[in-house]
Amino acid sequence: MKLKPTSLLIAGALMGAAVLPVQADPMVDLLKVLRDKGTISAEDYELLANAAKDKEEQAAAEKEEIMTKVDSKPSSIVTLDKKGLNFESSDKAFTANIGGRIHADYAFIDDNYFDRNVDSVDEFGNGAKFRRARIGMEGTMFTDWTYALEINYGQDEATEFTDATIGYEGFENVKLKLGRHKMPVGLEELTSSNRISTMERSGPTNTFALGRRNGLTVATGGSNWTLTGGAYLGEGVESDGWEGKDSDYGYAGRVTFAPIQEKEKLVHLGASYHHVGFEETFDGNNLGSNNGRLRARPGIHFFNDRPVQVNYGGTEDADTFGFEAATVMGPFSLQAEYYTQQLNRKEAKDADADGWYALATYTLTGEARGYKGGAMRTISPKNPVGKGGFGAWELVARYDVLDIWDSSAALENTSGIRGTESNIWTLGVNWYVNDNIRFMANYVDADIKSDDASDLEGDIEAFMFRGQVAF
Amino acid sequence: MKLKPTSLLIAGALMGAAVLPVQADPMVDLLKVLRDKGTISAEDYELLANAAKDKEEQAAAEKEEIMTKVDSKPSSIVTLDKKGLNFESSDKAFTANIGGRIHADYAFIDDNYFDRNVDSVDEFGNGAKFRRARIGMEGTMFTDWTYALEINYGQDEATEFTDATIGYEGFENVKLKLGRHKMPVGLEELTSSNRISTMERSGPTNTFALGRRNGLTVATGGSNWTLTGGAYLGEGVESDGWEGKDSDYGYAGRVTFAPIQEKEKLVHLGASYHHVGFEETFDGNNLGSNNGRLRARPGIHFFNDRPVQVNYGGTEDADTFGFEAATVMGPFSLQAEYYTQQLNRKEAKDADADGWYALATYTLTGEARGYKGGAMRTISPKNPVGKGGFGAWELVARYDVLDIWDSSAALENTSGIRGTESNIWTLGVNWYVNDNIRFMANYVDADIKSDDASDLEGDIEAFMFRGQVAF
Amino acid sequence: MKLKPTSLLIAGALMGAAVLPVQADPMVDLLKVLRDKGTISAEDYELLANAAKDKEEQAAAEKEEIMTKVDSKPSSIVTLDKKGLNFESSDKAFTANIGGRIHADYAFIDDNYFDRNVDSVDEFGNGAKFRRARIGMEGTMFTDWTYALEINYGQDEATEFTDATIGYEGFENVKLKLGRHKMPVGLEELTSSNRISTMERSGPTNTFALGRRNGLTVATGGSNWTLTGGAYLGEGVESDGWEGKDSDYGYAGRVTFAPIQEKEKLVHLGASYHHVGFEETFDGNNLGSNNGRLRARPGIHFFNDRPVQVNYGGTEDADTFGFEAATVMGPFSLQAEYYTQQLNRKEAKDADADGWYALATYTLTGEARGYKGGAMRTISPKNPVGKGGFGAWELVARYDVLDIWDSSAALENTSGIRGTESNIWTLGVNWYVNDNIRFMANYVDADIKSDDASDLEGDIEAFMFRGQVAF
Repeated sequence: MKLKPTSLLIAGALMGAAVLPVQADPMVDLLKVLRDKGTISAEDYELLANAAKDKEEQAAAEKEEIMTKVDSKPSSIVTLDKKGLNFESSDKAFTANIGGRIHADYAFIDDNYFDRNVDSVDEFGNGAKFRRARIGMEGTMFTDWTYALEINYGQDEATEFTDATIGYEGFENVKLKLGRHKMPVGLEELTSSNRISTMERSGPTNTFALGRRNGLTVATGGSNWTLTGGAYLGEGVESDGWEGKDSDYGYAGRVTFAPIQEKEKLVHLGASYHHVGFEETFDGNNLGSNNGRLRARPGIHFFNDRPVQVNYGGTEDADTFGFEAATVMGPFSLQAEYYTQQLNRKEAKDADADGWYALATYTLTGEARGYKGGAMRTISPKNPVGKGGFGAWELVARYDVLDIWDSSAALENTSGIRGTESNIWTLGVNWYVNDNIRFMANYVDADIKSDDASDLEGDIEAFMFRGQVAF
Repeated sequence: MKLKPTSLLIAGALMGAAVLPVQADPMVDLLKVLRDKGTISAEDYELLANAAKDKEEQAAAEKEEIMTKVDSKPSSIVTLDKKGLNFESSDKAFTANIGGRIHADYAFIDDNYFDRNVDSVDEFGNGAKFRRARIGMEGTMFTDWTYALEINYGQDEATEFTDATIGYEGFENVKLKLGRHKMPVGLEELTSSNRISTMERSGPTNTFALGRRNGLTVATGGSNWTLTGGAYLGEGVESDGWEGKDSDYGYAGRVTFAPIQEKEKLVHLGASYHHVGFEETFDGNNLGSNNGRLRARPGIHFFNDRPVQVNYGGTEDADTFGFEAATVMGPFSLQAEYYTQQLNRKEAKDADADGWYALATYTLTGEARGYKGGAMRTISPKNPVGKGGFGAWELVARYDVLDIWDSSAALENTSGIRGTESNIWTLGVNWYVNDNIRFMANYVDADIKSDDASDLEGDIEAFMFRGQVAF
Repeated sequence: MKLKPTSLLIAGALMGAAVLPVQADPMVDLLKVLRDKGTISAEDYELLANAAKDKEEQAAAEKEEIMTKVDSKPSSIVTLDKKGLNFESSDKAFTANIGGRIHADYAFIDDNYFDRNVDSVDEFGNGAKFRRARIGMEGTMFTDWTYALEINYGQDEATEFTDATIGYEGFENVKLKLGRHKMPVGLEELTSSNRISTMERSGPTNTFALGRRNGLTVATGGSNWTLTGGAYLGEGVESDGWEGKDSDYGYAGRVTFAPIQEKEKLVHLGASYHHVGFEETFDGNNLGSNNGRLRARPGIHFFNDRPVQVNYGGTEDADTFGFEAATVMGPFSLQAEYYTQQLNRKEAKDADADGWYALATYTLTGEARGYKGGAMRTISPKNPVGKGGFGAWELVARYDVLDIWDSSAALENTSGIRGTESNIWTLGVNWYVNDNIRFMANYVDADIKSDDASDLEGDIEAFMFRGQVAF
């Protein structure tokens, strides 16, 4: 007898298993064949076919139950890894990252380091300090918009938000950022404090790169170049270099180019310019508006006051040029920057200041320093501790020179003079335990000079240690 | 031959597929039939039936494996969307929301705005400021209990927690809240700073509504009315209106009624009363306890000191009545409030102060302002940017008047007088990009008067801009 | 006819269901038998066997689809419960907990409590205060490394991070912690502020246990003992007991032993020693470096200045011994500590100070206090509110004595003397609503004495209330 295949069987044969309807049950087909052949009775067929159908229905119900359970699970993706705590909505339009960092510093410094001291500079012995303790949240909203909020606690400053920004990345190859964030000045400055090779940035970076300001930045770039510019307003918060008198303003631009940018091989070139203006100029009788004050902590952050300082009175605005170069050749890297600044003064001679540093690093364990978007990135240890390795070990040496003394301009309307020139050696060993934890040891020998016998001068030696966790 | 249905088959037939025990295998039943009919041998039956049973067992094991995997997945629901980062335990007893806001303000103000100035008021030029930068966590615990913790960083104030509350919502239609939260006074005050139509609240709200206080609030209400009351203690933190001398206290009540509350249509009426007392009264020789000091920043927050101020010495307590009205008619809304305050003074004439404002808004793109629980809610753009639209655009105008000068009372025991009356026009354009991002532009023309020629007087014009992100 | 079992059937029979390959389909085997017996035609066999195979393939595809869906779900586990918001990566190497606490305090204190007052101590009336408002994140990274970051806002102090640590727990039975955390001194001090039985710790704990310091702690222990030691540096932040002059240092050790540690039954014994040194010694002309200043807030935190205080000038270092004992017998507990401190002074007689307290608690609802790792834990209510119970109710009484006056040493080079001895009764009722919420009521009767008629003396009575939420 020839079996007349049911339409379901035909469908199955034609369309293949993947689209076979669930109800095509070969058991029922067999039962039909056996019934038609008389092997089993119609009564048996009825009972057995019903049981088979029930079983199929039950299986379908079970599958649906599982799928419902699976689909009712959170649609947002949560991951916790070395990049912190990450959230992503199922349509990927919203993301959030919760992260933080702790930089716990310990310093041992000779108590009588200044040959000629100035009262207003606090001397310092041994001590512990939270250089940075931060926790923050950043991400995207509606795909194109970004936000960032990070609270910083540093023992020298009030607890406040460091980054607080609203951004737009919906234009092709152009990014906008409004709020407080880093001005586009300086390779060392723009490399995260989690990633710089020494515990502190150099004196010139400290003095001439202005760090975080409140304003609008526009950034574009290609695979090996970046172009960034922005305009900023003063925040009324006192800080290095640019005194944030409420009515101050500034604008800045930076261009970088990496002619060689391969795996473990880099040549980076960069230049920046920034202009800051002061609505009210410095006045000897009004120390409250310290426009034109240049100052720095030389390689060591364990001072309440900055030992290098000159206030050039009557400064109306200042122009600063910066030049950057860096190269990575496998485990070896070199990095250097030079800044030159002119303070334009009312009723007094304009003043010049400049500074430079050169940094060399060598990774004993072979890892190369990273690079992205015109800034250096950190070393990622190939063999982290706990995974059969000893992490990455890096040796660092930096020499930096800061000269804020303009002898002819300094004859007119200056004040607050401490040291006026610093030459600093920083030698360091970094241990990258894994991608989140780093321990740093720095030896700093800072030579502070001043041109006048009544000002601060001396040689400081410091041993400093940092425990760093960042996620 | 008649098949004797197994008990399993009967069970299956009687109870239906949903409750069919897994072990009811029609294959085994068929094999039995074929064996009983002699179609297959007993040996064949044994082998085939065992294989069928094994297959069923394997399927059951696989299903259990999947279910275990599914059930081991996070039982808490995580969602990330325009409302921030939300967590909910599987039994819904615990919830948490992590959110934040950034209000980045930029102002351009005429530097010489006061005709008659007073030394203690800082003049101000252009500037940038974080009006608010907040990050916080709130939610429920054990279903009935609520908590809220929000850290605020505003550049005029110390970084601190704004809301810090424990609540209980287990009673029917009654909510309790303990800790620091807003006192129930004022429609403009109780509308979130993310949702108010102007960058700053009006002078009268600034002066008479006391904002966040530490105490206990009890709230009840129906579909179109609310009734809220509470008692509060001073926190020893200086702020507008009510000087938080540690021994101060206050209580407040508010009732609202919305006779019309439909979609895009609203009539809101409200009234509030609050009483604050000062344990130690103001004493001319003791400016530290500034009870009875009335003051405000007139529509512009870019002042360190408030240009409108009078201290009524000897104030023992103060009674304040507030009246509210608002209406929404599609894209158009009107809102007004009036406050009147009496300062009850020891050994001096009691003093009166009052103020009012009227606000009109019109949404060019047609959206209506929202309303919930006796407070206004923000506009939700129908066509957000990036989804084929240009967001929502809103025009705003407000006029507010604050008069804190009581000429007869002011003859006795007053001090700290600056401006004593302000009349302010605020014109604004708001761009709601989407539900999280808003840009605001405000033009403020503030006319500050005082009754005495030696006090502060002048006209201030300011252009102010805000970038706002809230989630 | 003898069935020649297929190899698949044999494999199935030999290896059991668990390892039965998916493709072993008893249906196909049956079809083979029926074909071989001639019950069905070869053509029927072909069609039916193909259908059976298709069905199996479809089932396998469906299973894979489900598994893919299940596995693509967030690999991190998120739980929200009474322990806060918890995250765990799928490999368990990374964990994060986001939690917080609010301690909202309200006090009613007699305004004229001092019989003999000293100007520099602020008097205090009624008031509200956030004793603690904290939010933080802690967890592990790469299995062995720990981190903790907690922001604290207390109305007497600047907003700052309390705990900020990096730890390593990869060694067997040894834990390391670097950064700011509690020094291993004192049972009352090391019990979390969420868990102590009174609103405030005792005067002796306040004075002699130094709380959080920045340094390195090493901890080991067994099932019923702990041994902890560490070295710390000053942070330049002024605090109780040990003035954190930058160049200060300290080390500490603590040992605990619990001879009885059963369910609801405990005997705890402990001892600690710590040494703190001051690089610059106290000098009467230099009150800025207040080495050797002993002081406390007696059981009440509502003072800006501490009413108990003596500065022993010329103190070079101090040695402190502490002794602890505690017992839990079901709902009843007793706890006591004694401290003795010697201040070693240059050019002045060494000074002694000491203090002790005894605490008794009784849980009306029967719960026993917990204990873990040498510190007390809180009560967990058996019948929380909202789950058919009234929570846990606890009665507390504590008497504490602090004597920082050394009459012979005090003749030489002392300053800043206020009260010199305090005897304080604290009576309390605690209501544990559930594991997250506690309300506390404390009555404090503090008797402050001093040896000289010109110093502070008096009796303070205070009623204090706390709303506490911790997660």
